[in-house]
Amino acid sequence: MSKIGFIGLGIMGRPMAGHLLDAGHELVTVKRDKPLDQALADKGMQELANPKAVAEQSEIIITMVPDTPDVEQVLFGEDGVVHGLQKDALVIDMSSIAPMPTQEFARRIEEAGGEYVDAPVSGGEGGAINAALTIMVGATEKGFERAKPVLEVMGKTITRIGGHGAGQTCKVANQIVVALTIEAVAEGLLFASKAGADVEKVRESLLGGLAQSKILDVHGERMIKRTFDPGFKIKLHQKDLNLALEGARTLNLSLPGTANAQQLFQACAANGGADWDHSGILRALEKLADHEVSK
Amino acid sequence: MSKIGFIGLGIMGRPMAGHLLDAGHELVTVKRDKPLDQALADKGMQELANPKAVAEQSEIIITMVPDTPDVEQVLFGEDGVVHGLQKDALVIDMSSIAPMPTQEFARRIEEAGGEYVDAPVSGGEGGAINAALTIMVGATEKGFERAKPVLEVMGKTITRIGGHGAGQTCKVANQIVVALTIEAVAEGLLFASKAGADVEKVRESLLGGLAQSKILDVHGERMIKRTFDPGFKIKLHQKDLNLALEGARTLNLSLPGTANAQQLFQACAANGGADWDHSGILRALEKLADHEVSK
Repeated sequence: MSKIGFIGLGIMGRPMAGHLLDAGHELVTVKRDKPLDQALADKGMQELANPKAVAEQSEIIITMVPDTPDVEQVLFGEDGVVHGLQKDALVIDMSSIAPMPTQEFARRIEEAGGEYVDAPVSGGEGGAINAALTIMVGATEKGFERAKPVLEVMGKTITRIGGHGAGQTCKVANQIVVALTIEAVAEGLLFASKAGADVEKVRESLLGGLAQSKILDVHGERMIKRTFDPGFKIKLHQKDLNLALEGARTLNLSLPGTANAQQLFQACAANGGADWDHSGILRALEKLADHEVSK
Repeated sequence: MSKIGFIGLGIMGRPMAGHLLDAGHELVTVKRDKPLDQALADKGMQELANPKAVAEQSEIIITMVPDTPDVEQVLFGEDGVVHGLQKDALVIDMSSIAPMPTQEFARRIEEAGGEYVDAPVSGGEGGAINAALTIMVGATEKGFERAKPVLEVMGKTITRIGGHGAGQTCKVANQIVVALTIEAVAEGLLFASKAGADVEKVRESLLGGLAQSKILDVHGERMIKRTFDPGFKIKLHQKDLNLALEGARTLNLSLPGTANAQQLFQACAANGGADWDHSGILRALEKLADHEVSK
């Protein structure tokens, strides 16, 4: 069992930390303005003043925060992790952030005597609660072997994609595929609906063939039942597609479909939908067509 | 067992007709310039002069031809099916054609004393050979019940979507979803590849999560192994997206992703790729990025 510092107790981080406590690890975190989640406190989680203090107590530090600047602040800010880093400590960033800065963070952590692993996740709140997350890992072979037993407590499909940053690259690719597949399902169902077909039967039929996807199943059902409460918020997917499109610009890469999906998310946000589930991309298309999909 | 007229013995039609013969039905078809496929002749298929003659001998007429004008010609042209139609004959159009003309064809066949069923398929040559096609049916309840035993000889997932034309509407929706999902996978893998990640591991990881689709599995593998021999030809998918975009114009519906995918198929065609498998949409994106995905 390890001494683990876990920083970032949001919707995803809370259940993930809970699994680590249940597995017998000792966990500390950074004290926040609001009180620590009661369930985590009951399982023995301790609070410390800042990331530096957390690092001083931890063999492994896990970060699960919203965006690239948040990771940078936690790791390298005043009283950041790097200032309290123990020799050979393992830093596992499970946030979804930009791949190229990740390589820079890895270099700085290794210079400070630690080991860095990027391990973003897919699977959402449900995956976090059920310890069934897909985890995409960028690390050295050695770093991966060290991180694996801890990651296995939180996830199911754990794949080392490559060296530092490769986990984040894979996560961006995942978010590209997910966004465009949601748009695929939305355009298909909208066409069927406006042409007068029974969309539930269309979904059912398409699930039996080449058009099958987890998204047709889960998000297709959401679209038909019109349950656009998150799930995964459009504003978070906008952040991820921004990583994709900024990355594409840096890499000299043209992603016309991704750019288009991002514009539709922006249309949702313009209509009060930043907090809708990402299946709400349908609503932007419905607005263009002045037609609502209905069962 | 029924007397069936089967018109359209292409890549799909040949194995489909073979299954009907194997099941014990009597089949006739229209004589063409080239000799009848030997395997079908050996199973007892007979040739007649024209669609009218075929209809005169058949309780059920199945059409499996390339496009809307072909169906119109076979059914209503000089010596067309309608001129030899038996009372209560069942016309099953399994071609993939436009939904709105289909409703008109159904009306004309019913006026002539027959019953019309649109039953386009998904699943490609493999699905036809293995009698595992997904079949999307537009028909009256009665027409569906009559067609079902025959369709079950050729397909696995057989769904009545609604009345006349609903099968074709569903097929168009299917082709929208398939095209956009292929683009989703292509953009995701291209991003990963250009960012330096191992695309095979990315595909593997993504298959374990929300990005999972049959297309990520099958066409993702094609993209990585660069096997762009069809499969399903880009020029056929262009025809199907044309049905989607023409339908959308008629219906006052905006399908920005579908329009974008069609432009990428056109870029493939411009580069000699009209006969590539539709996973070759990746090549249009690669050309834009001056980068090839490789294992």
